[in-house]
This record gives sequence, structure tokens and C-alpha cells, in this order.
Amino acid sequence: MNTDKLLMLFDEAGEQFLSGESISRELGVSRTAVWKSIHKLQEQGYSFEASRKLGYRITGRPDPLEASVLENLLETKTFGRKLVVLQKVDSTQNIAQQLAQQGAEEGTLVIAEQQLSGRGRMGRGWVSPFGKGIWMSMVLRPLLPVASAPQLTLLTAVALCRSLRAETGLDIGIKWPNDLLIAGRKISGILLESAAEDERLSYVVAGIGISVNLAESDYPEELLERAVSLRLAAGREFSRTRLTASFLRDWEALYHLYLEEGFAPIRSLWEALSVSLNHRTTLRTPQGVLEGTPIGLHETGAIMVEFEDGTLRPLYSAEMGEPAST
Amino acid sequence: MNTDKLLMLFDEAGEQFLSGESISRELGVSRTAVWKSIHKLQEQGYSFEASRKLGYRITGRPDPLEASVLENLLETKTFGRKLVVLQKVDSTQNIAQQLAQQGAEEGTLVIAEQQLSGRGRMGRGWVSPFGKGIWMSMVLRPLLPVASAPQLTLLTAVALCRSLRAETGLDIGIKWPNDLLIAGRKISGILLESAAEDERLSYVVAGIGISVNLAESDYPEELLERAVSLRLAAGREFSRTRLTASFLRDWEALYHLYLEEGFAPIRSLWEALSVSLNHRTTLRTPQGVLEGTPIGLHETGAIMVEFEDGTLRPLYSAEMGEPAST
Repeated sequence: MNTDKLLMLFDEAGEQFLSGESISRELGVSRTAVWKSIHKLQEQGYSFEASRKLGYRITGRPDPLEASVLENLLETKTFGRKLVVLQKVDSTQNIAQQLAQQGAEEGTLVIAEQQLSGRGRMGRGWVSPFGKGIWMSMVLRPLLPVASAPQLTLLTAVALCRSLRAETGLDIGIKWPNDLLIAGRKISGILLESAAEDERLSYVVAGIGISVNLAESDYPEELLERAVSLRLAAGREFSRTRLTASFLRDWEALYHLYLEEGFAPIRSLWEALSVSLNHRTTLRTPQGVLEGTPIGLHETGAIMVEFEDGTLRPLYSAEMGEPAST
Repeated sequence: MNTDKLLMLFDEAGEQFLSGESISRELGVSRTAVWKSIHKLQEQGYSFEASRKLGYRITGRPDPLEASVLENLLETKTFGRKLVVLQKVDSTQNIAQQLAQQGAEEGTLVIAEQQLSGRGRMGRGWVSPFGKGIWMSMVLRPLLPVASAPQLTLLTAVALCRSLRAETGLDIGIKWPNDLLIAGRKISGILLESAAEDERLSYVVAGIGISVNLAESDYPEELLERAVSLRLAAGREFSRTRLTASFLRDWEALYHLYLEEGFAPIRSLWEALSVSLNHRTTLRTPQGVLEGTPIGLHETGAIMVEFEDGTLRPLYSAEMGEPAST
């Protein structure tokens, strides 16, 4: 018996139970064949709730990070084509950093089921439970001046935002410079670490964390107000391999657009997706906390901020607070 | 007997021999006391040529890299105040990189008598024989956007050039971005490796190599046309600890000027010392080889180049050839 037809039945049934009898009738097979097929699916990573009265319903689908599965889905030329798939790591970023230092080529991707000490911006941690998200880091080697690093950060945020919007249908926006938010709650973090020699970039390690299928119980309580997963926002699970392949395709395309056309198109795309613009906010800079209204991107990738005295200045490095009014 | 007085006699005599008899007369001590003092100086690292007929002359002075000596000479607040003095290392840059990654504070300085595989720009090597030069790397942690890295490179070249000009009286100029030249031959190399997190510098490791007391025989033959030491250019030796202390003082002062006043004063100082401006030259960029006339610095630290068609463009990353005409 073909398990695909059985899966289609369960897909249609959604949260509902299907009795063994109705399945055997629908597919024209014996009750024993149904039972065998369910057993087969369990071996593939599906899980079922079985009720003597009601029958079966699916409670979990397999979504392992398998190199062969991801490779089959890839539509890229270089991004992800050198693939390191791991189970538990301290941080994919640390591993990709080591690979970059050892000369790993552009597109080398480290992706793991779980990070034990995932790293976020400003030395913060990043919640990365097993099998629930996309925790990955990729090596880039653009022949660019060091000043391009902030533009690569913004480019990555744009690619991820566009890709996730298309895949999930969720209303995802970008908070400067590179946090992705759904209704003010963070679903993704991006951290670009770059190494430069004098005026030239040597390599960039782009770390990306996407909270895909996390449940509320996966978050520390104090984070729930500020964080959310795609699953919690959409009410359904997503395939991590599919999201990853789709993002890598969009990211690579945008990267080449940037290398050929410069920052102008990226800037327009970023501004269109931004939720940071035209709201008064606090800006924590290394020189102190300022208050102002971000109104757009500077051509360097800095954020242009209008201050109370009417002056307009680019801020190169700041952490944005919540908007004072939305 | 005080060896200082004896050293003053030898200083006055220069290359001339001093007979034991003349020394004993001049200082009013016995010939045996003279002999004992010379022996004492030998133990301190001085070397002498002894001639039965002519007497003694100094052929070498001690110039060890001793932490205590260098610390006594330092006039800085932070630069060099955490001091790691080593004998033979692969590369001071590698060691300082490790220290930076482990959180070493600003001003942490690694200096060595010899580098076995000193590193220059673009993955090139750097000749670093034992005791003959200043081979050092220092950690900086400026609270600056990543785009400042090229400006720090230029700042370091300006500080080193001004310091060496003052200490040696030699006519030293800067070739863009950060090579120091005497009459077209390189006496010093600077390599700034920076690490950034998104738009913000995490740390910079500034590597500086100064060919102080190298003899012709210290260079591979193919380098002699393009390289020279302070000693070969000036005809005398220099104290490495003194040059180092003087440079660290000037560098720290210029660094603080930059943090307070921005790049404008550094740019003026760089342009005044540059030997790269207003000569037609080749410019090897990641995108290909161009020909043009550098006419000044851009406010970002890029070099402004006038091309044949009259256009003026900043180049952020290029390797300059020899001037087509000087």
C-alpha cells in the first residue's frame, strides 16, 4: 500500500480522528494493511494518537535536518553547496568561524538541530531547542571594502524577510538593522561577523536563527512577550528544510543583485519592509541614549534619524527601542 | 669603576680604536680596572673588537627587548601597558588575535625578537630576523562603526611615519594606504585586521613591522631593491625600545585626537606625508587593473583617483603600483 494516499487522507482530516474502518474503505485495502502503513509512517518519523474508539490522528510529522533532503531542495549555485549538518553544537557561528579561518569557500553552510549556546547580537544568547528552528551560519567571501559589511547585514534581513513572507503568508517586518518581527515580537535574528584586512573584507560569517516550530513551552517565560515562532504566529508547522532552501535561493539572488547593482535596490527593499521608520524611538548608541525618528536608510547602510531640533543625521551603530507610538 | 664614563669615551671615539693606556689615563684608573670594565660591558651585551696594537673599539651595543626597559620608557596611558614580550614566535599578529578573541583589553601589545612567519598585506610574508626590528601587534577596541577600520589604518601609518621621522631624521613618506618608504624602498609595513559584529567593530589587531637594524645580508636578494632598514638608510643603529616607546606615545595621542575630532585632521596629516599623490600610477583592484592619478583622500579613507576621462572616483581597495613618473 502507498503511504502517500494515507498521508493525504490524514492531511484532509487535519485535527480529526480517522477510524481504521473508514481508511480501509476509502483506500480499498484491508484493516491490516492500514495498520501496517501507519506503522511504516511511524518509522519515518510521523507520530499518531491512537484511540480504540475514534481511530488515529497525526500528532507529529518528521522534519529532520538531513543533508540529502536539503541538497535535493537547493536551487542555488554556491549558497549551501558545501553543507555541514550537525546535531548538537555550542554555536553554528563558532564552527563556521573556524571553517572560515581555515579557508572555507563562499557558501559553506553549517546548520544544526540544536545550539547549546547560540549567540545573538551584543553578546546575547539565542534560544535554539532541538529540531524546532533553523540555526545556521554561512561563510561569505565578497571582494568588497570593509564598509560594505553593514549593507550585507541589511541585505540578509531583506532576503530572509521576503522569503519568510512568501513561504508563510505572515506579515513580517524588519526592525533596524536586522531583526524580523511579527506584531512587535521577534521571530528571527541575524548576526554578521566580519573579518577584514586593512580596507578589504576577508570573510563574513552570517549567522541566522529562525524560530520555526517552537511552542510556548520552548521559550523562557520572560521572552514570551518579545518572541514568537512561525508556528505560534501561523497556527501550523513549517518544514525547516523547505524554508531553508527557499531562503538560500532568495538570499543568493539578492546577494548577486547587490554585487552587480550596488546597495540602492537593497535599500529600497529594506525601507519597504521596515517597521522602524517614521516612529519616534530611543536609540542606544555607544555614545549614549538618543531620541529621534528614523526616516530611512543612508546610502552606507546607516539609519537616517531626525532629531527634535530638526537636524538629520546618520547613525551607524545603535540599538533601537520600542517605538514611542505606533 | 663606573662603566658610564667608559661608554662615553667609546661614544666619542665612534669607529676609532681606544688604547687601554689612553683610557686608563683619561679616566684615572688602572689598566686592570679598564679591562674589568670592558669585561662587564661585554656581559651586558656590548661587543668589542680588540687589537693588541690599537686597543678596543665597540662593534655592537645591546638592544634587547626587555619588558622592564620598555615599560620604563613608556609615556602612554593604555598603549603597550599590557605587554607581552616574546623571543621567537610564528607571528605576533596571530598571538594578538588569540588574545583579542579571549577578550584582551585595548593597548595589549605583543612584541617579539623574531617572527618565523611574519605576515604582511594580502597574505604575503614579512622578513623579521632576530633582534633586528620591531615586530609587534596591538589590540584596539574603539567604539566605532566598521567603516572606520580603513581610517584606523591610515591613522596608524601617519603616527608611525611622524614618529620615525622625528626619531631618525630620515625623509620617510607614506604610500597608500599604509606602507612607509624611504626613496621608494619600504622600511615598514602595517596590517590592520579587524573583527566586526554587524555594523560595529569588535576589535582591531594592528600589526606593525619596522625594519630597524637589518643589514643587507638580512634580506633575501630579491627584496633589496624594494626594501631598506633605518640603519641602512641612516648609516647608524637605533634603539628598538626607544623607537617603540616613542611610536606608542605618538600613536596613542593621534588615536585620541581621532576619537575626539574625527578623521579630518588625520586626513590632512596623511596627505602631507603621502608620496602617492599627483603621480600617475597603476591601481590593482579586485575588479581589475586601472590607471589613474591619486589626488587625495576621501572622507571615508578611500583614495580619490582622477582617471583619464576626467572622472574622479574614490577607490576603497586597491594596490598601488610604482608611479609612472616621479
